[in-house]
Amino acid sequence: MIILVNVKNPRNGTELCWGRQPVLTLLTEYPSKCLKVLLSESSDKTFSNRVEEIASAKNIVLEKVHAGVLEKLSKGENHQGIVVRMEALEPLDLDDFIHGLDPAKPCMLIILDHIQDPHNLGAIIRSAEASGASGVIFPSKRSSSPTGTVIKVSAGSALRVPLICVVNISRTLQLLQKAGFWIVGLDHKAEQGIWEDDMPSRLGLVVGSEGEGLSRLAASKCDELRSIPMSGHTASLNASVAAAIGMYEWTRGFMGKIS
Amino acid sequence: MIILVNVKNPRNGTELCWGRQPVLTLLTEYPSKCLKVLLSESSDKTFSNRVEEIASAKNIVLEKVHAGVLEKLSKGENHQGIVVRMEALEPLDLDDFIHGLDPAKPCMLIILDHIQDPHNLGAIIRSAEASGASGVIFPSKRSSSPTGTVIKVSAGSALRVPLICVVNISRTLQLLQKAGFWIVGLDHKAEQGIWEDDMPSRLGLVVGSEGEGLSRLAASKCDELRSIPMSGHTASLNASVAAAIGMYEWTRGFMGKIS
Repeated sequence: MIILVNVKNPRNGTELCWGRQPVLTLLTEYPSKCLKVLLSESSDKTFSNRVEEIASAKNIVLEKVHAGVLEKLSKGENHQGIVVRMEALEPLDLDDFIHGLDPAKPCMLIILDHIQDPHNLGAIIRSAEASGASGVIFPSKRSSSPTGTVIKVSAGSALRVPLICVVNISRTLQLLQKAGFWIVGLDHKAEQGIWEDDMPSRLGLVVGSEGEGLSRLAASKCDELRSIPMSGHTASLNASVAAAIGMYEWTRGFMGKIS
Repeated sequence: MIILVNVKNPRNGTELCWGRQPVLTLLTEYPSKCLKVLLSESSDKTFSNRVEEIASAKNIVLEKVHAGVLEKLSKGENHQGIVVRMEALEPLDLDDFIHGLDPAKPCMLIILDHIQDPHNLGAIIRSAEASGASGVIFPSKRSSSPTGTVIKVSAGSALRVPLICVVNISRTLQLLQKAGFWIVGLDHKAEQGIWEDDMPSRLGLVVGSEGEGLSRLAASKCDELRSIPMSGHTASLNASVAAAIGMYEWTRGFMGKIS
């Protein structure tokens, strides 16, 4: 599987990744991307030994450092005693990506209409993998991109789910429509509820940003808009929770038939 | 509606609440609980004026302070220029709470089997309100409780959804069963998927902790266990996302019939 991470380099073309689970995924599945492992001196023996073994077997430079160094590199995030400097991964062309999908099989793609919070982006990518989505598409500007925080929050899913960075969401939706995808926008103002009709087999699910929801432009390009019913006076859903409910509504219909 | 917040007092019987939306909910809907409003000197005029008007109308003490004071009180959380010191709210007895529910109507209660992360607790309470749950039950020990962070992450839902603090989860499940609730535990190891059978009208949905999932003891007291199907090699769902998918599976069946 080709992994696509938007290049947002703290140094030329490199990225940082932290947390035990994401780093172990990275070291075992993508060792050629790892430039250097920084391990806390105070990590427990079992974990240290495991990391040292993998790094040695895969020929990756490992350095033991004070926890404060990792604190600084991860900008106060929960690094769990390990940070890896990795090569930033190459973004894939949307056309090539679509071309690689089997047109005969059910397929869900998630399109993010300017999600801002890296925690939400990470959570959405994690749910995307679990629900069987084939990829997550996000815009290159005014959007969170797959940084170390995102990889960590996604519990490593950001290293496995294809992530496609695009310039223009409207054009992307048109391209997907041409490729046989039916575009459903999640919009809390939509009259049609998500359960009123079966989800389409080839689904492009558009998720709006945290504060604004779906943009008017993106909404106008969707084939249909659906809302998630809500109780309570001022109730609303977190963007990543709304996205997960939308994704799993597709999974409910196409479980076992996923490409 | 009686609001129940576990007493976790930074000072005798008081609690702190921050963030624009939660504080506005608190000031307008529960003014008698508000002891003092601390507003940042650097807040914008529109927001300041609005808060000052409400505080004056409701006779609540308001003090303008340097943003650093709020930073310290909220322990670095995103206070958005406003913190309220409020009375800690009284927890309600589980028996009284159950007694107050209409036995003829569909009803969903969420039981949290030791959720640790206040962000997850807040997110679950937010989804609980939106999905039409009648209450969220959590244990008094080894569990996150409704602090300022929880109120903020819940977008104010923790001030509206009844929260019931209990000593013992097993005993609670038995009490709910006696009151006609069918207890479904979300367990990723369960053979039955959440969609294989309709959700019961009176549902007690048990959600396990972040790392461990459902405890063996809690699982043994459930009427049935159901799993959320997952794709991907090492895919898993965030606890609050799994909880929301479980809740909305009930909502899908009982929308429009909620008590």
